[in-house]
Parts: sequence; structure tokens; C-alpha cells
Amino acid sequence: MFPTRLTVDALDRIQDRVRRRLLEQGLDALLTDSPEDVAYLTGFFHHPSERPVAVWLDADGGTVLLVPELERENAERQSARADIVSFPEYPGVLPPFRFLAQRVGHAGRAGRVGFSTGMTWERQSAAFAELDAAEAVPTPLVTIARYEKLPEEIALHAEAARITDLMLEAGVALIREAVAAGGALPSEAELASHVGGVGVSTMYDEHDDVIVVSPLAGGLVYAGANSAYPHGLPSGYRLRPGDTFMLSLGCAVGGRFVEGERTFVLGTPTAEQRRYHDVVRVAQATGSAAIRPGRECRAVNANCLDVIRDAGLGDYLRHRQGHGIGLGMHEPPWLEDGDPTVLAAGMIVSNEPGIYIPGHAGYRISDSMLVTEEGARPLTSFPRDLDHCTIDL
Amino acid sequence: MFPTRLTVDALDRIQDRVRRRLLEQGLDALLTDSPEDVAYLTGFFHHPSERPVAVWLDADGGTVLLVPELERENAERQSARADIVSFPEYPGVLPPFRFLAQRVGHAGRAGRVGFSTGMTWERQSAAFAELDAAEAVPTPLVTIARYEKLPEEIALHAEAARITDLMLEAGVALIREAVAAGGALPSEAELASHVGGVGVSTMYDEHDDVIVVSPLAGGLVYAGANSAYPHGLPSGYRLRPGDTFMLSLGCAVGGRFVEGERTFVLGTPTAEQRRYHDVVRVAQATGSAAIRPGRECRAVNANCLDVIRDAGLGDYLRHRQGHGIGLGMHEPPWLEDGDPTVLAAGMIVSNEPGIYIPGHAGYRISDSMLVTEEGARPLTSFPRDLDHCTIDL
Repeated sequence: MFPTRLTVDALDRIQDRVRRRLLEQGLDALLTDSPEDVAYLTGFFHHPSERPVAVWLDADGGTVLLVPELERENAERQSARADIVSFPEYPGVLPPFRFLAQRVGHAGRAGRVGFSTGMTWERQSAAFAELDAAEAVPTPLVTIARYEKLPEEIALHAEAARITDLMLEAGVALIREAVAAGGALPSEAELASHVGGVGVSTMYDEHDDVIVVSPLAGGLVYAGANSAYPHGLPSGYRLRPGDTFMLSLGCAVGGRFVEGERTFVLGTPTAEQRRYHDVVRVAQATGSAAIRPGRECRAVNANCLDVIRDAGLGDYLRHRQGHGIGLGMHEPPWLEDGDPTVLAAGMIVSNEPGIYIPGHAGYRISDSMLVTEEGARPLTSFPRDLDHCTIDL
Repeated sequence: MFPTRLTVDALDRIQDRVRRRLLEQGLDALLTDSPEDVAYLTGFFHHPSERPVAVWLDADGGTVLLVPELERENAERQSARADIVSFPEYPGVLPPFRFLAQRVGHAGRAGRVGFSTGMTWERQSAAFAELDAAEAVPTPLVTIARYEKLPEEIALHAEAARITDLMLEAGVALIREAVAAGGALPSEAELASHVGGVGVSTMYDEHDDVIVVSPLAGGLVYAGANSAYPHGLPSGYRLRPGDTFMLSLGCAVGGRFVEGERTFVLGTPTAEQRRYHDVVRVAQATGSAAIRPGRECRAVNANCLDVIRDAGLGDYLRHRQGHGIGLGMHEPPWLEDGDPTVLAAGMIVSNEPGIYIPGHAGYRISDSMLVTEEGARPLTSFPRDLDHCTIDL
């Protein structure tokens, strides 16, 4: 069975990495309530809700996990790498963060305490009303620490990619079977449900501890004119001969996400379909080659999208080349004009140029790319070219 | 086909209701980026991401929806009840909120602008750096406006309850069929997948426009000792004779959620199982009778949970009686010791006392309750008592 949880040793290396950044920034402690940060720092996964779950990291070594009483046994069962302190319930007669403040004692009152810029105004106010820190300093330092993955994290992403490839194959197989049987072709929603089921059942069959995040496995499936909306939603629309359609899939193993997206044609492609598909494929290949350590995200994005603009299809662009991926399905850095972040080995970013032709269809090809010392490589391997993405009728 | 979208008239009544609250609080405008608030105010549903989507509501009549270019056609297709302004991409060469600030012009510079307390520190700073308002005032006023549902919203909740009942029936049927066939009993994950599929396919078959929120339909299924974790996660564990198990289901129609949860026993219940189940059922019935207009949430919660404490099972409590439900699966007010909110007709709250016996199982029964002038009534109707929740072997 595939191990899905990081070892204590790996979690300790993560906490050390974040502590070094705290010291560099002159912070005495850090508070974050991002569910991904909590999982990253302590290995504890939970369903986020209005009940705060937060990690307090002292620069000099202490790690405290604040959970509602409801989650205490769950945190213990997952061997959260932290001292656990719980509050009875939300909103509570006493404010939840008072229980954290009591535990961290003078540390909460003394120094410069960083907080995640992703905290809501409400949580941030409630926390610092109790902690009474000398200074509350907004900081994205955990987000940035998460950019470069540990080898143990890369292994989880690679397994998520293997399952994403299986899901793509399962989607294609379902359509081929329907074509062969001569019955009704599947709807977008049926395809989405089927591939999600394949992903989830593979995990339950082959992993020793399925770490459930939302979504665990699944994706968007859209066909024909529906696919011209980049973030459309699967509908009851059934595939029709001649349709362009997209399987935009992904899953998370050990909480680490991967995306894999391919665009298909059902039946013999028209010249128009081939032109659109080819341009996107070349843009994606160019984007892939452009992802290298030392390059700025915005420059990589320009290399990739310029292929589409140079082909005269710039009016059909609706989004950037890609985004970071990790414990979040979308996270910085962003392969976009406004992001000067320099790529480094160990980062994982999506490479997913797309074009959207209103009334006709959308075309997008995506892989999650691991940045290496030599360049970058896609974690998913399903074929990308139209000949392999044509389903004969 | 069941209509799932609010009419323009209903959306206008919602905006008027919120504007009255703005005037009462001396605010000139309001900014919110909560996906539920956006859907509530404009009827536009989207997948939340790092790209901001926000509504600006002028006290004197203007409504502006800020979306990424990626979502513009989607917002138009959904006839979002607002003037749409888009920004090219995230993070962008120019900050996204600059496009909103340019549209709202002097309104953004002049007055007292309320913002949702659920905004993240990062978004709130980015927005007001551009808006340059005289004063940025945190306010939960949209959240509070959402407490009392319109009749049109109640119709959506009632339909969600009907489907939730169907899902409960489907879960029970799957187990009964497995028992009758004498084969393997389903696993938690298989049950969760099955009931989710029934919910989703019912919507696609019977609704004219499925508004997809996450999750659309589904739930948690846990059996035996796994069910002793209130927010556990479905696993590959297969039901066994003698198990207590829980179907904790729900769905959203037109974005409006309902929960329906029942606790079952597979085989003849032991005296212990019957005692636990009966106490929770009586607590839930007591909680149901206690929900009436004019009563404080904390008092209702005490009435309900006292039944469990009086039965000597207080050590097994892990959570409050319930929570508000609407466009959010969990939203205020909270049926909990710390919430003095007074209930009013038109509110919908969950009534879901539970007990959790480590190593044995959990017992919880939940309905979404509509507060009426006369008291309250459950929207879901699946039987609650153990005789109806026993599956014979």
C-alpha cells in the first residue's frame, strides 16, 4: 500500500524551514489558520468550517495546534506534530483564541507575531484581541516556504499524477465503450462522476490512509459550446458527434494536488478543430520548455501565450499560462504577466494555456510541471496531440 | 422542470433589504467578496479562487460585480443582477481592485464603505488601497440580512430537503440490497459515492438549471468506531453486522443547502445501542420543540443538550445543537451557549444533537428546521426512530 503521510522527520524539516524564515524576518512567532498551512506544518487535515483551526509556531521551538474539541480526537489520531489545545465550541462563551493565548502565555504578549495574510479580518481581529502581541505583522512566509517541495512531497504529487492519468484513460474508455455499444453517449455530469469514482476507488484500494481533502478526485468535463467557458460547470449535456470536449481532471494524494487536462474531438476533426488544437499544443510545449530554474514567471507566461497571439488567436485567450500547485489546487507563484517570482528547482506549476471560442468550444492542455535543476518535466503523461486525443466514431 | 434561479424581482428585494441596512448603519456603500454574498446579491454563482470576485453596493442604488475576465461570459450567461466590470487576470500587472475603483469613481473615494468581516486581510488591504474610502468599516450586515429567507429561497430549501430524503432512502436501499444478495456489504466510501450520485442525477433530471456549488450533493458516511469522530471522513471500511452507522447527507438546490442525518443499526440493536439512539432522538425532539420565534439560540441549545446531560451522557457531547443554514452549509446564527441571537420566522437552522462514544460509535440525528410564526418544522422527513432506522439482517 502506498504511504500517504509525511514522516515525523519530514514534518520537522518543514517546521525548521519555516522557523528559519521567522528568524530572518525578526518575528517571534507565527499564527496561521489556512487549512493548507495547518496540514503543511503539522500533518493534520480537516474540513474547514467556522470553527477556527490554527497553528502557532514559536521562533524558539514550540508548535501549538488550536482545534475545536470536536476535532481533538481526529488531530490525535492523525498524530498532529504539535501540542494540541482545544476550545469547547464555536462561537463559545469564551472566545476560541483565548484558549490559545492561555497556552502560549508570555509568548503571545511579548513580541512581533506574524500572521498569514489569508486570515479573514474577523479571525485576525479575534486572535489578536486575545494574544495581545506587541505587533501583528502580516506575512506570506508560510505560503512562500511551500513553493519548493520536499522530495517526500514530490513523491505524493507523482502518485497523484499517476492517478490523474488513470482518470483521463477512464474517461476516454467510457466514451469509446458507449460508441462501440451504439447507445447514448455519456453526459458531462456522467463523465465527471465516472472519472471521479475511478480516482477515489483507486486511492481506497491502493493507499494505506486516504487523506481526504475537497475535492479528493474529480474534475470538470465540458463539451461543445459549454467548453467555451473556462470555468464552466458540468451539465446534463450529452456528447454529440463532432464535439470538441475537455477532460479537466485532478486529484490529491496526501493532500498534494495535480491537474491533468486534455482536449478531445469526437469523430474526425475539422480543419478548424485541428488548427485550434495544434496551436494550443504548441503553446503548451513552448511553455513547458520555458519553465526553468532562474526564469521569471511573467517571462515564461509571455513565451507560452505569445505562441497563441502570434497565431492570430489572441482574442480567444481568457487566462494566464498557469499557477503553482501543492497543498492548494491553485497557489502562488503565478505564471502571469504580473508575477516576477523566479522559478527554482522543486517548485510545481501548472502549464495550461487555453483558448475559448464563444459558441464553438474551448481548447486547453494542462500538466503539472516539476521544476528540476535541468528544466522541468510534466508529472502527467497522457498523450497531448490531437491524433491521440481523437475518438473515432 | 423545477426552477432553481431566483427571479429578478426576488434579487431586487434582496438588494433593497441590504440597502436599508446600509442606510441604518450610516454606510455609503458595501464591499463583499464572500461567494455566498455574491450569489445572494446578484444571482451569480462561481467557483471561488484566488481571482477576486466581489460586489459593490451603493447605498443610493448602484450594484457593481467585479469579476476576472475569465468569468465575464459566465456572469453574463447567469444574468448577474449588477453592472459587470472585469479585470484581465490575477495577480495582474494592475491590481484587480483598481478596475472596480475606476468604475465606482467618486463613490469609492468619498464615504464610509462597509466591508464583509469575512474578507481576508490580503483582499481587504488590496481593495481599500485602490478605493481610497474615507473610512473602511467592518460589518457583518449581509450575513445578518441572509438570516431570514425569502419565500422563494424557502422553496429552494424545501426541494433540497426532498432530494436529501431521496438520498437517505437510496443509502438504505443499497445496504438492504447487499444484505439480500448476501454479498459484500458496501464501504463507507461506496455509500457516500452512491448517495451523492443519486442526489446529483435527480437534479440533472428534474431541474431546469443545476446551480453547481461545492458540494452539490453528498455527505459523510461513517460506521462503527469511525463514526465516533464527529467530522470523520468516509473510508474504505465496510459495514459489518452489528455496526452503528451514520448517513450524514445534504445537498444544495439553487445554492441553498439542507442537511439530513440519520443514525442506523445494522442488525438487531443491543440495549446499549438503543439507549444511545433513544436519548439522541429525544434530545432532537426536544430541540425541535424549543426552536420558536422570540427564543434565544443559546437557550434552545441548552434545552436540547440538557436531555443528553440529564441522561448521564454529557461526557459524550462534542458539539452544539446546530447552526444556521442557507447559501452556506454552516452559517450564523449558532444554536450554542455563546450565541444570544433571537430566532425569527424565516430562519433555517440545523437541529443535530449528537453523542460520540470513543471506540464504539457516534449517534446524531439532524434536520434543517424552518422557523415559522407557530414554531418550527423540519424540512426533511425521513423517519428518525431506531425501529425505522434498523436494517434487518
